[in-house]
Amino acid sequence: MAPWHPRRIEFGGDYNPEQWPRDVWAEDRALMSQAGVTLATVGVFSWAHLEPEPGRYELDWLGDVLDGLHAQGIGADLATATASPPPWLTRLHPEALPIDHEGRTRWPGARQAYCPSSTAWRTRAVALVEQLAGRFGSHPAVRLWHLGNEYGCHTSRCYCDTCAAGFRRWLLRRYGGLDGINSAWATAFWSQRYSDVEEILPPRLTPDGAWANPTQQLDYRRFASDTLLEELLLEKEVLRRLSPDVPITTNFMVMTRFNQLDYWRWAEEVDVVSTDYYPEFADPLTHVEAALSADLTRGLADGGSWLLMETSPSAVNWQPRNPAKKPGALRRDALQQIARGADGFNVFQVRASLAGAEKFHSGLIPHAGTDTRLWREVLDLGSLLERLGEVAGSRVESEVAMVWGYDAWWACELDSHPSVDVRYPDRPRALHRALWDRGITVDLVRPGAALDGYKVVVVPTLYLADDAAAAAVRDFVAGGGHAVVTYFSGIVDEHDHVRPGGYPGAFRELLGIRTEEFAPLLEGETVVLDDGSTADVWTEDLRLEGAEAVRTYADGPVPGAPAVTRHAFGDGTAWYIATRTSPEGTSSVLDRVVAEAGVGAAAVTTPGVEVVRRRGEQGSWLFVLNHTGREAAVPASGVDLVSGDDLDGEVRVGPGGVAVVREAGA
Amino acid sequence: MAPWHPRRIEFGGDYNPEQWPRDVWAEDRALMSQAGVTLATVGVFSWAHLEPEPGRYELDWLGDVLDGLHAQGIGADLATATASPPPWLTRLHPEALPIDHEGRTRWPGARQAYCPSSTAWRTRAVALVEQLAGRFGSHPAVRLWHLGNEYGCHTSRCYCDTCAAGFRRWLLRRYGGLDGINSAWATAFWSQRYSDVEEILPPRLTPDGAWANPTQQLDYRRFASDTLLEELLLEKEVLRRLSPDVPITTNFMVMTRFNQLDYWRWAEEVDVVSTDYYPEFADPLTHVEAALSADLTRGLADGGSWLLMETSPSAVNWQPRNPAKKPGALRRDALQQIARGADGFNVFQVRASLAGAEKFHSGLIPHAGTDTRLWREVLDLGSLLERLGEVAGSRVESEVAMVWGYDAWWACELDSHPSVDVRYPDRPRALHRALWDRGITVDLVRPGAALDGYKVVVVPTLYLADDAAAAAVRDFVAGGGHAVVTYFSGIVDEHDHVRPGGYPGAFRELLGIRTEEFAPLLEGETVVLDDGSTADVWTEDLRLEGAEAVRTYADGPVPGAPAVTRHAFGDGTAWYIATRTSPEGTSSVLDRVVAEAGVGAAAVTTPGVEVVRRRGEQGSWLFVLNHTGREAAVPASGVDLVSGDDLDGEVRVGPGGVAVVREAGA
Amino acid sequence: MAPWHPRRIEFGGDYNPEQWPRDVWAEDRALMSQAGVTLATVGVFSWAHLEPEPGRYELDWLGDVLDGLHAQGIGADLATATASPPPWLTRLHPEALPIDHEGRTRWPGARQAYCPSSTAWRTRAVALVEQLAGRFGSHPAVRLWHLGNEYGCHTSRCYCDTCAAGFRRWLLRRYGGLDGINSAWATAFWSQRYSDVEEILPPRLTPDGAWANPTQQLDYRRFASDTLLEELLLEKEVLRRLSPDVPITTNFMVMTRFNQLDYWRWAEEVDVVSTDYYPEFADPLTHVEAALSADLTRGLADGGSWLLMETSPSAVNWQPRNPAKKPGALRRDALQQIARGADGFNVFQVRASLAGAEKFHSGLIPHAGTDTRLWREVLDLGSLLERLGEVAGSRVESEVAMVWGYDAWWACELDSHPSVDVRYPDRPRALHRALWDRGITVDLVRPGAALDGYKVVVVPTLYLADDAAAAAVRDFVAGGGHAVVTYFSGIVDEHDHVRPGGYPGAFRELLGIRTEEFAPLLEGETVVLDDGSTADVWTEDLRLEGAEAVRTYADGPVPGAPAVTRHAFGDGTAWYIATRTSPEGTSSVLDRVVAEAGVGAAAVTTPGVEVVRRRGEQGSWLFVLNHTGREAAVPASGVDLVSGDDLDGEVRVGPGGVAVVREAGA
Repeated sequence: MAPWHPRRIEFGGDYNPEQWPRDVWAEDRALMSQAGVTLATVGVFSWAHLEPEPGRYELDWLGDVLDGLHAQGIGADLATATASPPPWLTRLHPEALPIDHEGRTRWPGARQAYCPSSTAWRTRAVALVEQLAGRFGSHPAVRLWHLGNEYGCHTSRCYCDTCAAGFRRWLLRRYGGLDGINSAWATAFWSQRYSDVEEILPPRLTPDGAWANPTQQLDYRRFASDTLLEELLLEKEVLRRLSPDVPITTNFMVMTRFNQLDYWRWAEEVDVVSTDYYPEFADPLTHVEAALSADLTRGLADGGSWLLMETSPSAVNWQPRNPAKKPGALRRDALQQIARGADGFNVFQVRASLAGAEKFHSGLIPHAGTDTRLWREVLDLGSLLERLGEVAGSRVESEVAMVWGYDAWWACELDSHPSVDVRYPDRPRALHRALWDRGITVDLVRPGAALDGYKVVVVPTLYLADDAAAAAVRDFVAGGGHAVVTYFSGIVDEHDHVRPGGYPGAFRELLGIRTEEFAPLLEGETVVLDDGSTADVWTEDLRLEGAEAVRTYADGPVPGAPAVTRHAFGDGTAWYIATRTSPEGTSSVLDRVVAEAGVGAAAVTTPGVEVVRRRGEQGSWLFVLNHTGREAAVPASGVDLVSGDDLDGEVRVGPGGVAVVREAGA
Repeated sequence: MAPWHPRRIEFGGDYNPEQWPRDVWAEDRALMSQAGVTLATVGVFSWAHLEPEPGRYELDWLGDVLDGLHAQGIGADLATATASPPPWLTRLHPEALPIDHEGRTRWPGARQAYCPSSTAWRTRAVALVEQLAGRFGSHPAVRLWHLGNEYGCHTSRCYCDTCAAGFRRWLLRRYGGLDGINSAWATAFWSQRYSDVEEILPPRLTPDGAWANPTQQLDYRRFASDTLLEELLLEKEVLRRLSPDVPITTNFMVMTRFNQLDYWRWAEEVDVVSTDYYPEFADPLTHVEAALSADLTRGLADGGSWLLMETSPSAVNWQPRNPAKKPGALRRDALQQIARGADGFNVFQVRASLAGAEKFHSGLIPHAGTDTRLWREVLDLGSLLERLGEVAGSRVESEVAMVWGYDAWWACELDSHPSVDVRYPDRPRALHRALWDRGITVDLVRPGAALDGYKVVVVPTLYLADDAAAAAVRDFVAGGGHAVVTYFSGIVDEHDHVRPGGYPGAFRELLGIRTEEFAPLLEGETVVLDDGSTADVWTEDLRLEGAEAVRTYADGPVPGAPAVTRHAFGDGTAWYIATRTSPEGTSSVLDRVVAEAGVGAAAVTTPGVEVVRRRGEQGSWLFVLNHTGREAAVPASGVDLVSGDDLDGEVRVGPGGVAVVREAGA
Repeated sequence: MAPWHPRRIEFGGDYNPEQWPRDVWAEDRALMSQAGVTLATVGVFSWAHLEPEPGRYELDWLGDVLDGLHAQGIGADLATATASPPPWLTRLHPEALPIDHEGRTRWPGARQAYCPSSTAWRTRAVALVEQLAGRFGSHPAVRLWHLGNEYGCHTSRCYCDTCAAGFRRWLLRRYGGLDGINSAWATAFWSQRYSDVEEILPPRLTPDGAWANPTQQLDYRRFASDTLLEELLLEKEVLRRLSPDVPITTNFMVMTRFNQLDYWRWAEEVDVVSTDYYPEFADPLTHVEAALSADLTRGLADGGSWLLMETSPSAVNWQPRNPAKKPGALRRDALQQIARGADGFNVFQVRASLAGAEKFHSGLIPHAGTDTRLWREVLDLGSLLERLGEVAGSRVESEVAMVWGYDAWWACELDSHPSVDVRYPDRPRALHRALWDRGITVDLVRPGAALDGYKVVVVPTLYLADDAAAAAVRDFVAGGGHAVVTYFSGIVDEHDHVRPGGYPGAFRELLGIRTEEFAPLLEGETVVLDDGSTADVWTEDLRLEGAEAVRTYADGPVPGAPAVTRHAFGDGTAWYIATRTSPEGTSSVLDRVVAEAGVGAAAVTTPGVEVVRRRGEQGSWLFVLNHTGREAAVPASGVDLVSGDDLDGEVRVGPGGVAVVREAGA
């Protein structure tokens, strides 16, 4: 398989010609060409058109599409077309319909209505991929294979008997036998001890107010992620065999509101990491979340090249209220992803549909046609991305790492916890935002990953921390690093068993503290710290065992107790934030941490003006994205590839504007 | 069949003697007689008493009831008794139980627990109707047949396999074949293409966040309405055969919170349109909604005589909080319906039940007996309605029409739309209220109906507009009329396919505008218009193509863009309101529209004092209903049939009071 | 069977050694001994460990546990271990899985996942109890049998076909035959008449907005409570046979948020009443609710000795937010229960679990170990309870009774009622709180119980009142007592049939009033009374028929109508509170009632300082619990068993503190 070598910044989108008569296809190609489209994703939802009846394949039309794209110089990200089975499949194989947690069948009529464990689905999907790979595996347009689509988006977990059997096999592999399962799941509680592996079930609906075994729930999340990954691996095997020269990808959904899959595990299996990112229009900080999402995607790509595979050119259709993007937002959104490591910016979809569930999702070509502001912005963007081709393949600079774990997320948000207000992404977002405001770029890393080379490591809400995860942070600090741990981290091991002796078990010694009891706050309750800042959600009855108190509570359940601590450990320093500090409170702690650690910004900036640097063999590029309503000035020298201006010490960027400075002498 | 000739204003209610021992029946008859009851609906829930075991009929008791009513001079609206099957029916035929969207069986124990497609139910219902029609089809008390009851109120859509088969047949009839279905449903999207009609299913529960095909959903609403109508037609066939001289009705539920049936289609099949109307006690504008409901019912009756078949004399039992009606409210509520065309006012029910699910629903005879304010108000009302008999058969005057479509409602409120805040009845209610406040009466008309004779036509939120609906409005304006279209109208055709080229496709040329993108507002977001009024929910990025901007946005997503436009088209004028204007904003636009169109009020009035005129061969009657807490004066001359006063130029109506002026020289 | 003779105040908790390796057991015993534990509940969730495979029993480990406890002088409350079946049971007998109201199976994985009617479950449960009773029925450690656990907590009602059959048998026993059922259920309404008992079903999910027959729903609550009680009786029969000398108990859940069982009926069947009580941490008045719960438990025990079987030493794990208890709260919570009649204070659980669904529930031995504030408070409490041993067996003094009915609760909160805001426990809590603030202790009594000896009887929200319940209150007042009845009392009989002739039928004559219509208020609506106090939720259109108006409405739906009335009846007085008075409004009415009735407080106190007196053969003890943040002084003479101080006329109790005064000369 030829590796993915970014040669330019890709631009394009999902292209679904089967929705249109053939006479529209020519116009599509002309408009894509006009817009500078380089890569089109085709075939994602084409199974029913490629195999209209069981075993009868109609691939010619797709050949025509690929030929047409190739003639226009547009590459194809060719889907395996297995994202959603045709209606005939589950009619023939009703056992392939998914069953939800409450025992309800989920039916066709939308998409992704199949059981991830289904043999029928798998057999027919593999057969289809063999057809496609055999026919198009060496087509000159095909630059990338797109396996499935948004795995786990709609049917992430099925609770049917087939899945139950798969779960049992998975458990036996993981634990070796029944004793291991009984031990890991702590079935001594509530009379849950299994005497035969066949008794084990998915965590189906339990009686009212009786929460299912938490480790059973956690393992089912793991199993479900692995089961969907098996699908990808089945398709990958075919493609490696029949189309060995084309790299593979699948579009992840790296957003702080999606946690169905353990993308650390998935990223190991694809040649190119790509992701979908959709803003949450009702969230005024969604542009910061977009940065976090890009940073995490880059982490999944191990710092290498990745693609933004889907986003919306303007409105989406599935949020409660779907505003249009304001003028300039499309360009800013695109450059933000490029700034943070993307080597391509694709959207859903090339031409807005006139019918179906997504007809009110914007496209590059809107319902109102090409005499529109949106189309003119598309043309501008295509042109700009072409000019930015030199950036492709460079890497993003960062001195700060943040530990991010999918099983920590899963475990953290299980029921029967001290507080429902402890949601996993909350502190990662808060800490990332505080650094983002300072122009400090953050790499997201896997729990247990080596942390060499970073100056600061942030460990937010890592409720579940296995021994390796704990050791990695400990070693980092012992070696001179600066770590910041937030509350409800290090509480349990990989089986969701509490680490005894005082919280937070995994980090207690590192942090030089011991918490006797959690003291979560009631809804709406706040506490005041000794610096006058406020906090909410969480406090702890914490004792110092070596650490110093940097902040204490002025009131609340544990007045006088430490709220923020600092502990010299080995050659480094370990901080603990024991409450949900306000943005100001978080900021003042991080000010001290980055100062002590000597972390610098990509450029001197002000909150809301995003700065990131990519650096490659040929030089470096400073991206400046002004998310504010005021003109911003940032120190920079070189050439602004957006405006073409030569800069001597400063780049000025208008409200909502962008700059990409090819830095002089870098 | 003898047509329904209103000879008086009917008064009465549902009468359920089977709930009471025989000795109460005599008192019932005496009290009904005392109250001036003319029409009693009997037998609605009597199936289990009429056919206590399969095929064993016990009709004698009902004969006694009818004889008793007749002896007292009270007519019967005789139910076919099929509203709810007896428990034995679904025990014998479990497949006749309805299955809901989530696959759950809905069980007996309440009412209406049967599958609308069920052959068993239909067979036994028809057999029962044959018995009743054979026995009572010529009974002198029987003035009206009451088919079923509140069709679709509780079981409007069933998702069982029988219904699935019926849906397929319905689709084949509508579309001719599979290609037509695939095309109308746009199954090219999301791999939904059907290869065999047997693959088609009702829109059952789909995977999380994956919305079912919108046209599938829309067609299922149409199918469900038609399927229930089939039930009515089966009964109608029996009655026409065995009781040809008695007109038929069924009680619709014409309220802005009920949309299970397409009453335009249903109204074609009944001899007398009747409806149930229940106020929403928590809604401070429910009395205006009552006027709208009456206007729509009149529209369904094509301007002719109709009956208010059910309402509550005082409290209901099924809202979260069920206040009693205040003194005088019963009379005002009754006269409002009469004012707007009703020739009868009946309630549920004659005697309040002591047990069962509706025991806390008020009756004409309350739990506390006849020494009560309520009973005294009932006596007064009966007497007044008798005096108003001369009004029966006259018609309501109106110069304004409002287009109202049930499939527009269904389609408008499907998922995956630009904004969940666009609810169909919102703008109809707002525009109707603004006219109501001015004493301007509105006729509700079917999309596509000819609009000759009106001065103004209002087209609110007609999201789905087929070509005929669009042409009717266009022709009306071209011929000199004044139209007011509000946002999210004319967006899609009858298949829910977007009309391309810029919104609103069906009305773009008429309105002289082109909208590039919708720009809905976030929750709680408001915009200010250039006249200082505010708006919320919706804005658009709108270009003028011939129209003038009457209002523009002072801020918001599209500052400076037109918010209200006016377009001279043919001999008329077409207005567009592109945002959710405040009551003041709506009012100021309508002021100009009615002034330009020369529309007059029934009488000069003030907001909250409702005025409506009925006109017949013998003269005209001005109804004045004072919904305010202050005395009101309205110009009028003639005799007030309520007070008996001779009026010379003015009628004064106390707080909450009413007047019905037989107009002098009219 | 030897009766339960309290010899001391018991102290301990649930002890689940099967969760821990054997080497922890010794430490457990040592720590329990150190803390003064006298009673440990063992085996509650041990079925899967006692019978790891069907019919293979492993009891030795439990023998070791009991021997160990006995050696340490700790008694055992030995569970029958049937609280939750092992996974093998429902794998072998899938029909034993419960089915919920919506037809969904409830699965194992948590606890209590079995159908209460299941023959398989019952057979195997009885077999297990025979094993345990045979082996340990005379074990010297065993002081109490603990049957099941929290019956009805998670699976209170199952809707499967087995339960349906059981329901039919229960109905035939209750009503004698089909006619009785049809009459009681008023099946003449909505065509529900049954022609065969086999047609009758549980109140399963009905069509949308169609409420199931209310009497069917009410009877299903009764049936469900009786069905679970059958389980207890089956176990009791075994124990009486095989372990006749050991008294039996089961832990009720006497809280104002649990109403699955009719504990009046259950209390008849146990030798020792015990209960679980968990505070609602988000409720600022939860400590008053704790007092009410204790008073009700004492009522269930007929004023005799009872045990607090479970509560949390600090945080729980299952509320949305689970704060830790503040310093001193554990002691105050414990003494409150003792003050109100408990002769034991046990917690869940001895040692906090490290895994499973309840791992974040506090234990006597916390995760952080014994060097903790919590453990030190446990030691203090154990020591204090030992000193209080002299109190055991004494009785609580009370001059006021409050009628509390479980079927009144069930019926009151059925659907289709005048207002959803009428929740059963609301007025009991409000009236109890007003008395609690005055230091007046209240006994809770069963509807229909003789009320001799009380000075005041409070009857809050007794919606359903059978003839006996009404007669008891009437006789009490006729004989000179003072009764206070609140709105929505006495409305229906035991079949949920309205008592006609004006509300409140059962108490109309007693109260000297007649209500024509209810006039509930809308959400957020309030009314003002003539004394300036406010009220909400409810008003009535009430006529005086002998009573005097003590308060009237100054505004609202019925201005001028009586809001509070007083009626001289026989030798006593009957008050009616027709609206939801504010705490101040309630208070001012009760001031007058207790003054007229001559009711005294346990001691002169101030709101928030709880005072209760227990009196026994050896003397009396005044408990003072300061729930405020200020020091409190209460008149008292004797010895404070908490501080050891001799008191001469006054006891001073610090913020949050407690005193137990052995009264001088009492």
